[in-house]
Amino acid sequence: MMIVQYPSRPEWAALQQRAAQQQAQDVEQRVQQIFEDVRQRGDAALLDYAQQFDRADLSAAGGLRVGPEELAAAAAQVPSELQTAIRQAHANILRFHQAQVPAEERVETMPGVSCWRRAVPVQRVGLYIPGGTAPLFSTLLMLGVPAKLAGCPQIVLCTPPQQNGSVNPVILFTAQLLGITTIVKAGGAQAVAALSGGTASVPAVDKIFGPGNRYVTAAKQLATRYGVAIDMPAGPSEVLVIADESAKPAFVAADLLSQAEHGPDSQVILLSDSLSMLEQTKAEVERQLRDLPRAEVAAQALTESRAILLETPQEMLDFSNEYAPEHLILAVRNPEKLAEDVTNAGSVFLGHLTPEAVGDYASGTNHTLPTNGYARNYSGVSLDSFLKKITFQRLTAEGLLNVGPVVETMAEAEGLRAHARAVTLRLESLAGGTQE
Amino acid sequence: MMIVQYPSRPEWAALQQRAAQQQAQDVEQRVQQIFEDVRQRGDAALLDYAQQFDRADLSAAGGLRVGPEELAAAAAQVPSELQTAIRQAHANILRFHQAQVPAEERVETMPGVSCWRRAVPVQRVGLYIPGGTAPLFSTLLMLGVPAKLAGCPQIVLCTPPQQNGSVNPVILFTAQLLGITTIVKAGGAQAVAALSGGTASVPAVDKIFGPGNRYVTAAKQLATRYGVAIDMPAGPSEVLVIADESAKPAFVAADLLSQAEHGPDSQVILLSDSLSMLEQTKAEVERQLRDLPRAEVAAQALTESRAILLETPQEMLDFSNEYAPEHLILAVRNPEKLAEDVTNAGSVFLGHLTPEAVGDYASGTNHTLPTNGYARNYSGVSLDSFLKKITFQRLTAEGLLNVGPVVETMAEAEGLRAHARAVTLRLESLAGGTQE
Repeated sequence: MMIVQYPSRPEWAALQQRAAQQQAQDVEQRVQQIFEDVRQRGDAALLDYAQQFDRADLSAAGGLRVGPEELAAAAAQVPSELQTAIRQAHANILRFHQAQVPAEERVETMPGVSCWRRAVPVQRVGLYIPGGTAPLFSTLLMLGVPAKLAGCPQIVLCTPPQQNGSVNPVILFTAQLLGITTIVKAGGAQAVAALSGGTASVPAVDKIFGPGNRYVTAAKQLATRYGVAIDMPAGPSEVLVIADESAKPAFVAADLLSQAEHGPDSQVILLSDSLSMLEQTKAEVERQLRDLPRAEVAAQALTESRAILLETPQEMLDFSNEYAPEHLILAVRNPEKLAEDVTNAGSVFLGHLTPEAVGDYASGTNHTLPTNGYARNYSGVSLDSFLKKITFQRLTAEGLLNVGPVVETMAEAEGLRAHARAVTLRLESLAGGTQE
Repeated sequence: MMIVQYPSRPEWAALQQRAAQQQAQDVEQRVQQIFEDVRQRGDAALLDYAQQFDRADLSAAGGLRVGPEELAAAAAQVPSELQTAIRQAHANILRFHQAQVPAEERVETMPGVSCWRRAVPVQRVGLYIPGGTAPLFSTLLMLGVPAKLAGCPQIVLCTPPQQNGSVNPVILFTAQLLGITTIVKAGGAQAVAALSGGTASVPAVDKIFGPGNRYVTAAKQLATRYGVAIDMPAGPSEVLVIADESAKPAFVAADLLSQAEHGPDSQVILLSDSLSMLEQTKAEVERQLRDLPRAEVAAQALTESRAILLETPQEMLDFSNEYAPEHLILAVRNPEKLAEDVTNAGSVFLGHLTPEAVGDYASGTNHTLPTNGYARNYSGVSLDSFLKKITFQRLTAEGLLNVGPVVETMAEAEGLRAHARAVTLRLESLAGGTQE
């Protein structure tokens, strides 16, 4: 972890640089092949890939879908302390997302001209939850809660099978808690391919959510070419911490490491106006790193990390807004004041007692957030991500008399005569006494 | 306009087919070249393209940016009736979008765990307005009103110059009304390239909005590879009309034609449960087509149009929801009831006195809407399109005591020890009596 002291503004851009995400061409080609195969052979292709990539014989294990018995048997395999924790996280996430339910409001823009919006759920959504050593049941909560709250009629969960052909029981317990019953044993690009076109066992969906490795990321990109929407562009996870001299080096170090352990390409940036804070935190990072199970991963991520000494809180915030971090921790004396001027960030953690980890699991905010600088132009996943806003309008005769001439004038000026006439014919009919 | 009678459900898919949008490879290559050129040569490239594509000598006309004098002189060239119409449309659009301003609300998900969202404007936005014979000042209103309302600090308008090097005065008048002053005389792919990377005269932006030809569309797609967001995927404009026997054939025909005159690739679909309505409307379309200035364009669009006889209102709605039209007109006796069950559409027009044209210009709703079936998974442009929602959270000591153990349990179960420790260290410090 290198400490950079007082870089000049022109030097900032280099320090804000993220590692280039090279999409290897062979990944794209392989994903393209998988897509074509799944589109042609459907379930048969998914069964073959489960054998090949997950070493699971799903034909022997009852097929691609999780059956009611497997689902019902899951809870018994989840420790009760973990069940309680997941229930509490679910309640918090639900409470926060419930506050996002939009109110429908009619607006009379002119007398007789009524306009309104209605939030309608995306009808068919796919949630992708990666497998591997650590099943990300927290991500299932983060996607499943708003999907259910939005009222999406069709929710399809795809997650890779374990070698014995079953799905991790914590994932199944969480799905059950959410009320998600369409669960497909498929992972990787093949799952995304199945969701984007449908197979006999996998319903096609309109929008695909969820994290994954570079094959999944490439597959989601490819899915957009088939008219499917995705949650947001993907990139490695990242945190930026702003720490003044009131911060606790041990806390800051723990927060940096909890980001670094995500993966070797995780991005970690620490800003401070106190050199001693940077130095103490650096020493703490090295101390805490030693006994981490994922120390090797974290150490690799830290080789690319930066600790930067700047002059003032305003300068630190300017740097952060330019970088646009996924996670921003304000470990400062007066975080509410600094938070007011945050313009680009995914989720913000205020003060010394709010580690990023609480937002990853259970504070209630969503942990699916824009990375790679996309906090400049994207929001994290929220209830909105599962809704469309459809606009409606209805005119009375009075409304048409009020707004009609405006439309005629503008349409003629844009050279669109038929637009004008759609109004004119109706105005003439009103003048002639015809009623709606 | 061919009438199809009572197609069976399996036959619907073919009738819902849109013309394939072949992105010609030569368009993509050409746009790629333009991007590279603009990124390398900046303003010099833009000046060359203005000469080449717009036949405008901008060096002689004062450069790439519209100056204050040109802006101030615009209003005098706009007929006062048109000025009044634009002002009224502006007021209506503003009123409707003002109702979309989100309220910030703090949620205490557990005692001591505060979470909230704040809507923050996208900091730098680019609005692209095509030129050509008919300057689309209405689109400038539709993008400029929410951009201003959101409070985007940097709004850059790009629009191609006329041959004399000036910008159409109606565009400038509208920009002035909106308070947009950064106006660049650049069109086509080169404008999008400039917005996505910046040049000496064109500020780089975070998100690009606006319609355009296939070069502009390809350029917007390419811009996304440079980390820039776009409003939504583009496709030809389209309308679906549901008309029962209470509809007026002359009105329905006028609405179909106002869609058809947009371009030869416009999509027009008419559904009815009355054969006589279909036949009368068809005859009306042919009659009204004759004296349209854009008759040739509309006639070409109509060759691909479909008039379909179905059994019931429910069947017509099912068909429409599967098609997911950009514009949906409910020319029926009880449109409010039918509107309740619309699941996929961009904007909906209720009753016999609400032509689509009012939404294109002045009812107040936005006319930048999802086409090509994207109404399944995208909303139209709204205030939301110019905002990001950043989440915030802050825990007190009580909050950490409440949620901390939940986080520890879940993090350990996901194998993320450093996440757990970020909480544990803080809980230990609280137990040791340290205060925030």
